Amino acid sequence: MIHAGVDVKRIGIVGGTGYTGVELLRMLAQHPEADVVCLTSRSEDGSAVKELYPWLDHYSSLAFEAPNLERLAACDLVLYATPNKIAMTEAGDLLAADTKVIDLAADFRFKDQALWEQTYGGPHAAPHLLAEAVYGLPEVHRAAISQARLVGNPGCYPTASTLAVLPLVEAGALDLNTLILDGKSGASGAGRSARTDLIVAEASDNFHAYAANGHRHGPEIAHQLTQISGASATVTFVPHLLPMIRGIEITAYASTSLSLAEARSLYEARFADEPLVSVIPAGAHPETRWVRASNRCMIGLYQQRPGQLIISSVIDNLVKGAAGQAIQNMNLMLGLPEMMGIPAHPVSP
Amino acid sequence: MIHAGVDVKRIGIVGGTGYTGVELLRMLAQHPEADVVCLTSRSEDGSAVKELYPWLDHYSSLAFEAPNLERLAACDLVLYATPNKIAMTEAGDLLAADTKVIDLAADFRFKDQALWEQTYGGPHAAPHLLAEAVYGLPEVHRAAISQARLVGNPGCYPTASTLAVLPLVEAGALDLNTLILDGKSGASGAGRSARTDLIVAEASDNFHAYAANGHRHGPEIAHQLTQISGASATVTFVPHLLPMIRGIEITAYASTSLSLAEARSLYEARFADEPLVSVIPAGAHPETRWVRASNRCMIGLYQQRPGQLIISSVIDNLVKGAAGQAIQNMNLMLGLPEMMGIPAHPVSP
Amino acid sequence: MIHAGVDVKRIGIVGGTGYTGVELLRMLAQHPEADVVCLTSRSEDGSAVKELYPWLDHYSSLAFEAPNLERLAACDLVLYATPNKIAMTEAGDLLAADTKVIDLAADFRFKDQALWEQTYGGPHAAPHLLAEAVYGLPEVHRAAISQARLVGNPGCYPTASTLAVLPLVEAGALDLNTLILDGKSGASGAGRSARTDLIVAEASDNFHAYAANGHRHGPEIAHQLTQISGASATVTFVPHLLPMIRGIEITAYASTSLSLAEARSLYEARFADEPLVSVIPAGAHPETRWVRASNRCMIGLYQQRPGQLIISSVIDNLVKGAAGQAIQNMNLMLGLPEMMGIPAHPVSP
Amino acid sequence: MIHAGVDVKRIGIVGGTGYTGVELLRMLAQHPEADVVCLTSRSEDGSAVKELYPWLDHYSSLAFEAPNLERLAACDLVLYATPNKIAMTEAGDLLAADTKVIDLAADFRFKDQALWEQTYGGPHAAPHLLAEAVYGLPEVHRAAISQARLVGNPGCYPTASTLAVLPLVEAGALDLNTLILDGKSGASGAGRSARTDLIVAEASDNFHAYAANGHRHGPEIAHQLTQISGASATVTFVPHLLPMIRGIEITAYASTSLSLAEARSLYEARFADEPLVSVIPAGAHPETRWVRASNRCMIGLYQQRPGQLIISSVIDNLVKGAAGQAIQNMNLMLGLPEMMGIPAHPVSP
Repeated sequence: MIHAGVDVKRIGIVGGTGYTGVELLRMLAQHPEADVVCLTSRSEDGSAVKELYPWLDHYSSLAFEAPNLERLAACDLVLYATPNKIAMTEAGDLLAADTKVIDLAADFRFKDQALWEQTYGGPHAAPHLLAEAVYGLPEVHRAAISQARLVGNPGCYPTASTLAVLPLVEAGALDLNTLILDGKSGASGAGRSARTDLIVAEASDNFHAYAANGHRHGPEIAHQLTQISGASATVTFVPHLLPMIRGIEITAYASTSLSLAEARSLYEARFADEPLVSVIPAGAHPETRWVRASNRCMIGLYQQRPGQLIISSVIDNLVKGAAGQAIQNMNLMLGLPEMMGIPAHPVSP
Repeated sequence: MIHAGVDVKRIGIVGGTGYTGVELLRMLAQHPEADVVCLTSRSEDGSAVKELYPWLDHYSSLAFEAPNLERLAACDLVLYATPNKIAMTEAGDLLAADTKVIDLAADFRFKDQALWEQTYGGPHAAPHLLAEAVYGLPEVHRAAISQARLVGNPGCYPTASTLAVLPLVEAGALDLNTLILDGKSGASGAGRSARTDLIVAEASDNFHAYAANGHRHGPEIAHQLTQISGASATVTFVPHLLPMIRGIEITAYASTSLSLAEARSLYEARFADEPLVSVIPAGAHPETRWVRASNRCMIGLYQQRPGQLIISSVIDNLVKGAAGQAIQNMNLMLGLPEMMGIPAHPVSP
Repeated sequence: MIHAGVDVKRIGIVGGTGYTGVELLRMLAQHPEADVVCLTSRSEDGSAVKELYPWLDHYSSLAFEAPNLERLAACDLVLYATPNKIAMTEAGDLLAADTKVIDLAADFRFKDQALWEQTYGGPHAAPHLLAEAVYGLPEVHRAAISQARLVGNPGCYPTASTLAVLPLVEAGALDLNTLILDGKSGASGAGRSARTDLIVAEASDNFHAYAANGHRHGPEIAHQLTQISGASATVTFVPHLLPMIRGIEITAYASTSLSLAEARSLYEARFADEPLVSVIPAGAHPETRWVRASNRCMIGLYQQRPGQLIISSVIDNLVKGAAGQAIQNMNLMLGLPEMMGIPAHPVSP
Repeated sequence: MIHAGVDVKRIGIVGGTGYTGVELLRMLAQHPEADVVCLTSRSEDGSAVKELYPWLDHYSSLAFEAPNLERLAACDLVLYATPNKIAMTEAGDLLAADTKVIDLAADFRFKDQALWEQTYGGPHAAPHLLAEAVYGLPEVHRAAISQARLVGNPGCYPTASTLAVLPLVEAGALDLNTLILDGKSGASGAGRSARTDLIVAEASDNFHAYAANGHRHGPEIAHQLTQISGASATVTFVPHLLPMIRGIEITAYASTSLSLAEARSLYEARFADEPLVSVIPAGAHPETRWVRASNRCMIGLYQQRPGQLIISSVIDNLVKGAAGQAIQNMNLMLGLPEMMGIPAHPVSP
């Protein structure tokens, strides 16, 4: 884990016991210029990484330790793989110590404090940092991320959704108030939780919607579309639970005057230089296994009636939807090549 | 299989080698007043049922035979579990012999010959029967089915979709031209087909849309909504393939001026006397396992913005979406109790 | 639920909140001569059945109540779908009140008190009942079950294992001390438990052995083989967790001098009159889906070397391995037809 | 794909359209010193790699071409990812042209021509190469592989099985004629085949044995144990099909006089320096997800009775059981670091 080079970056991870944390560990194990030097968990203080994750014996000596700001402040960058409302209490101190911060939870995804407080409940602990924090979607905010000290890593559904409609929004070709997003996620999106409704006997060979009256990722998507377009956006968003491990698919129903051919040209031009976003050939449909365990996003375009474009967008919720995007942001923030250590080759079958 | 009673109905099945056929056999095995006396398959002529389906040894002596209209004409009712465009070539002859017919394929689902020919390609072989044929959705056409000689059994997605919006349509409360239906189906919906894209290594732990530029069930749904409402309806319908065996979920995005409370009252009243359709409590989401292997439909209602109602509807695609609904129609057409032999108790877990 | 007939039996269920309990409710919903009149659960006291199990709205008015021996004593028969060590504390009182008892847990599966106490830990609360209790495997103990007041319903692995070797044991053709049983079970066998290791993200697309140093079902199988053979038997038994919901498969490696043809004759003769056990044709392999949701057991026979017979046996762990076998025993104990209300037609696909 | 370095090795792949082929492509995409310069397929001649595998757009210009020995002979090493009986007809010509060969099928796995012909049927086309060919299990034959021109890459079950008992065999502590191997494999082991019995509706939520009267991997395992021990070995081997994509688990029942503690010491010492084989802690059970998409093998040891050791061994059938092991062999044969480009970090969840 300790590289010979002088420039290896020192990385801290707070809360490495969930799926986002273990994905960060998997990716950093193969990152040539970043080492995990501090890994904290209140519940697993003292446990070796390879005890919890026998398959990560790359980390032969790394162990979880109790949260300790001083140890974290000695890192170049700290990744928060914690529940909401943790990073916002500590980010200020780390920034003051010249340590950069990426929060994989929702604390720094909104510019609008009131909207955040309404969506997540209770006061924000660091409202003064909201203006500075950058939304970590490199395809939109790459330059700002490169300069950022503090990044709010996007949610999984918002990543797939925003990329699905980004060219339309930037081109002013999307009706910002009738967008419908029908989302589906693999069960890893619910986290490593001992919940009866997630066990194989209940959740495999099964499918259902959830939070159909409103899910927190709805406001996040609308807020981001507002940021990008400069005009107020709203969305209807319904998530569903898939009987599988990894993968998100968003089917977007977008009001636009563009024809299918015009939309295709627009999308292909917009993503031509994006290394991780592909517009697939006409008539094909992107499959979640085509991005499995990779940082990719694949997008297909369809039309059934004039005035409406249908977009299908797939990502791996744990990678481009979480840990992979965080490493991409980390690379940008630390001046490393953006794709360094990023899993680019999906595992399929 | 041969019952003692004098009134046992003689049933024929054409094409019992697909999933719809085997479900018909499963249900008729436990039907107290209907016997399968003729089972035809060109490819399996001579094979015993229990050879193909070792678990259906209830049929100790029944074997597949070559198609033979005379043998079928000796039945009280014949079920076509065939591909499209078979039943339309034989139904006339059977009706002439006083044998009733249910087609589980699409030949008799449309009143509109031109729309059928556009949707399925090529000329309809029995256009003179389209006016007589009844669309086999008992919740809408129960009385007509009871009097029918010929029934077109609804498609799986159209069953779940039509029930999802039926109260709105009947009440004139649905905008008939902006309805969006996002459908998801278990892999049994693709039939018992030796297709590479359906094998476990490709299609499990995977999810994708298909036919997003237009699927044949779109026109069927629109046609049925047109029939019910008396006004021209169109729909946007995108199906998706689920990594599981049984179950369909439809998430409908409906433009309506009804509030959520008004919609709930409307739905509860409409389905109060329907034995197989349930409106589930507010806030809950219907799961496909709640209807697994049964003839049930469960519906949930949601709202995120005024003017729009979200409906989630689940069925078992092979039962209420195919064979179970066919037995329900068979019972009605033969004057038997509608629920006789119908699997009413879902298998969960 | 309340039948018109005068002879309908009054059934109690203790602990109906696990998978065994819900299967009992599913089967009794379609049983023509047995009604559930009392259903107890300490944790769900007051909840309606259809609240917990929306798909079981057959029970329109039945609700869970707190455990109450007086209420249970008013039943003809009480089924214990509880953890181990509950039924043994109450069975005596119920028997004294002329109420018959079936325990689906392990309290009454052993004749040998010391072996039970060694296997399950701590003292047995009703050792005086062990001699009277009958092991509820109808294929072995049918006559005794018919006369029994108290039945210990077999474990899931022991049911599949005992049936797999029963003809050999009865014929004295099995070496009773070298039997190897490699078992695999669907995840419902682990119960409706909020355990992280059972969630879809961990346990689907995954496989592993468990309790390979010794599982409680090993002694149960050995004890039963000892009972049947009259000689001391031991077994090596290793269970594995399958990434699926229902189904158990046992591959037995048996030392015997019988040839494959001799073994086949022996098995076919032994099970010829058993309604629920089938010996499948030579060369075929029984699949768990062939018995899904049914009370069946299917057995295949193989040989790779002289002196050794390989047997593959499949059941549905929740049905023949638990609730279905309990209903079969209930029918026998109450003088009803053995197959009444038993799910005999597997659900496949 | 073309690296700047002068030493980049030129690799050919014959038959890259199955799962083994696509795994080779995935791994070589991230291999720093090997380029795929020739990829042949009779059926896909002319197709671009990224057409068949949209997720492998790393190969922006590589296309399948018709088989052409001259083109293959220009490679440093050719990997045969073909059915059996292809490589044996071409290997001699390639070797004559100084091109090394690895066959991922069975043509060069046996030293014993008669046994091969009995197992695979028909005459071997290159019997003169059998003596030279090395069995590509680096943990056993590392030195020979490093010197080899021709390697027969082991089967998936034989890899997991041989590693499971290797320390016992080498120590002379295994009874070579009573070994029982109960194997289970994910569905990708059956290849990318359009077979009805493999589709999700049949093979998910299902489990069964296959080839229980004898499978070709039985003789391969026995032959390899004979090679290692120098004494004649036989095995009983029964494979089973798991309802999942990747992973093999072998439960081995081995007659040995070693105690569990002695066996543990022996295994730990034997594999201490093996980078890809781990003996897991006492009491734990290796899970297939712990090796998913990686070249690892994990082994657990158990005992239920004296004289018998139980071993559970897991690998990813497509990686350590096929393509990953082939790359490991390729590295050895080409003088590259053995672990170069090898996926060492499993993907879990």
